[in-house]
Amino acid sequence: MPILVMKFGGTSVATLDRIRRAAKRVGVEVSKGYDVIVIVSAMAGETNKLVGFVNETSPLYDAREYDAIVSSGENVTAGLMALTLQEMDVPARSWQGWQVPVKTNSAHSSARIEDIPTDNIMAKFGEGMRVAVVAGFQGVSPEGRITTLGRGGSDTTAVAFAAAFGAERCDIYTDVDGVYTTDPRIASKARKLDKIAFEEMLELASLGAKVLQTRSVELAMRYKVKLRVLSSFEEQSDDAGTLVCDEEEVMENRPVSGIAYSRDEAKMTLVSVADRPGIAAAIFGPLAESGVNVDMIIQNIAEEGRTDMTFSCPVDQVKRAEKALNDAKTAGHINFHDLIADTDVAKVSAVGIGMRSQSGVAAKMFKTLSDEGINIKVIATSEIKISVLIDRKYMELAVQALHDAFELEKAA
Amino acid sequence: MPILVMKFGGTSVATLDRIRRAAKRVGVEVSKGYDVIVIVSAMAGETNKLVGFVNETSPLYDAREYDAIVSSGENVTAGLMALTLQEMDVPARSWQGWQVPVKTNSAHSSARIEDIPTDNIMAKFGEGMRVAVVAGFQGVSPEGRITTLGRGGSDTTAVAFAAAFGAERCDIYTDVDGVYTTDPRIASKARKLDKIAFEEMLELASLGAKVLQTRSVELAMRYKVKLRVLSSFEEQSDDAGTLVCDEEEVMENRPVSGIAYSRDEAKMTLVSVADRPGIAAAIFGPLAESGVNVDMIIQNIAEEGRTDMTFSCPVDQVKRAEKALNDAKTAGHINFHDLIADTDVAKVSAVGIGMRSQSGVAAKMFKTLSDEGINIKVIATSEIKISVLIDRKYMELAVQALHDAFELEKAA
Repeated sequence: MPILVMKFGGTSVATLDRIRRAAKRVGVEVSKGYDVIVIVSAMAGETNKLVGFVNETSPLYDAREYDAIVSSGENVTAGLMALTLQEMDVPARSWQGWQVPVKTNSAHSSARIEDIPTDNIMAKFGEGMRVAVVAGFQGVSPEGRITTLGRGGSDTTAVAFAAAFGAERCDIYTDVDGVYTTDPRIASKARKLDKIAFEEMLELASLGAKVLQTRSVELAMRYKVKLRVLSSFEEQSDDAGTLVCDEEEVMENRPVSGIAYSRDEAKMTLVSVADRPGIAAAIFGPLAESGVNVDMIIQNIAEEGRTDMTFSCPVDQVKRAEKALNDAKTAGHINFHDLIADTDVAKVSAVGIGMRSQSGVAAKMFKTLSDEGINIKVIATSEIKISVLIDRKYMELAVQALHDAFELEKAA
Repeated sequence: MPILVMKFGGTSVATLDRIRRAAKRVGVEVSKGYDVIVIVSAMAGETNKLVGFVNETSPLYDAREYDAIVSSGENVTAGLMALTLQEMDVPARSWQGWQVPVKTNSAHSSARIEDIPTDNIMAKFGEGMRVAVVAGFQGVSPEGRITTLGRGGSDTTAVAFAAAFGAERCDIYTDVDGVYTTDPRIASKARKLDKIAFEEMLELASLGAKVLQTRSVELAMRYKVKLRVLSSFEEQSDDAGTLVCDEEEVMENRPVSGIAYSRDEAKMTLVSVADRPGIAAAIFGPLAESGVNVDMIIQNIAEEGRTDMTFSCPVDQVKRAEKALNDAKTAGHINFHDLIADTDVAKVSAVGIGMRSQSGVAAKMFKTLSDEGINIKVIATSEIKISVLIDRKYMELAVQALHDAFELEKAA
């Protein structure tokens, strides 16, 4: 029988009633003839409670114990989901990560899945079991200890199972009904997309649209897993939600598919850096070593051997960046007059695979912002993305203006 | 290094503060030179919450899923205890049942431990680890599924580890400071015992003194594990609490060591049973098959071929007993005029290994009750126990009078 993977996030299994509703959705797919692998998160709030226990007990905790503790929430949901399905006369059983086993590396708290043997679950499907309920977010290390995949890791578990079992599709049930052209809370004209390309989803995910864990999208792209995002709170038809798929399957032919934003950015400027070959390495090497995620970089034209260097990073890494740069200055590796942090900025990005073939997107974006009187502080581009750093107070205006300019409210 | 097993029950690990207090006790034993195996229960209330989820989801639940769900509470405590010990610079790590592995049979929800390999934990002790924290109450079946040992099962986990590792002693930390001559809430003169023999503890445990799970005492007796019951809420000296040990080590030389009671009894009488050889088997066979735990039995002298048969059983099994007996009557296997259930009774028992060598204990017990005007309905005796069934309203009076009569308030 064809296999379907269905993943239910924390809000979709927050209560026994919601688990029952999710189980009914699973039952519908079973009755269509699918063998189903259900991946569950912990009931909403449980993981945060456990993480709180860990932080209160041991601020610099042993990540192996952290993983053993926080993975327990998923085990509870997996068992409850299996029992609920059994009550509906759907043959089901639960698996914890180590029982499959979901083999990961030893990078506790952010482990990567290395292998998922299918024999164990396939044998049960062969015996008439129709649903394998698997605790998401967790695996087991080569040393036999429990690992977790990082927050949002159940998305990655789901995609990895879909790849390993050659599933027809991987449905991600969540509390929104799909991927939107932008955040509907900011732009009321935001429109749900029927389809989006992996590459676009990847840019949107990493740009702050919190629908899917970035790694799950990477994995889906690599293994060509058809990924669908849909709501567990609405009655669903077969074409509900948003399908994340190969570029070729996305019919829309427009330059921009969505507008993303991020509030949690900071702009840092090294004023009057002594310019010389290798200066970029001397600046960004220490930042990387300190774990600062530098996003955009801009360098002014040098005058009289000195230049200004500006970059952006997450706002909660500013202190770390300042320390790294001041240490490098003290050690004599770099020389600058001043270091200015501007935490009152936001990043707004236009994303679309159509940019590859259609020109003028950047020009249209810059003109739109200019017409609204919004000053652009930093620009960064990739093949399918243009990002700008602007004053935070203009963020909502910029998103709305760009959404209008690229006519995203209209279906292509 | 010598090995000590320390078990902390649910109330002893109910909060992060209490886990810290328990960890300090562990630290004291480590500093004395012990390698310690700590067995933990779930934080008080957690297991009940999970059992509630299961019952609400599926009244006739799959015990394999029940076990997978309710075992998660112990995993959380084990990790938190390990982290707390690490914070105190005591090298520690956690083990879940399947990681040791604690091998059990497949009797889910009331599994029996069959083997505990010691190599894994001993290797870590060899590398300098000082405390192995093990999630109690759980194991893994030959099929690789999680099992649990029944409520109170962490006591059994502790004793089984003490036996497997040849531990010097198994300390059970709980919310009472030892085993008493009777329940202090009923008899204010109740005295804590310094020592009690395994056989006595076994009778007291099965008679309703809820200090230790019965099976843990059986196991301790079989493998000669020195068992100590003590409070996690008081500062402890080396001779605190009550030591449960071999008969030879108990110095007290008195006929009775304790008075136990149980409120949850019922008396059932078959009136005017047609008496014939094999009638007892015809009555108690169907009861056993229906899962009724018959405790005491009394048969009147037969007159004119008919007799009355009285027995006691737990009060919540009365309905089941009635059905079994009426079915047997309908099927023509037995014949009686009436079936009377008296649920307003209680069982009071005197327990003591001294009974073996000292006579007159039963006579003294019956006279004491008679002097108080308490009528005895049924009597049952074993080598070290005399139990009587009486009207429930006299239960407290009977316990107090017997405690006085055998002078249990005085140390021997």
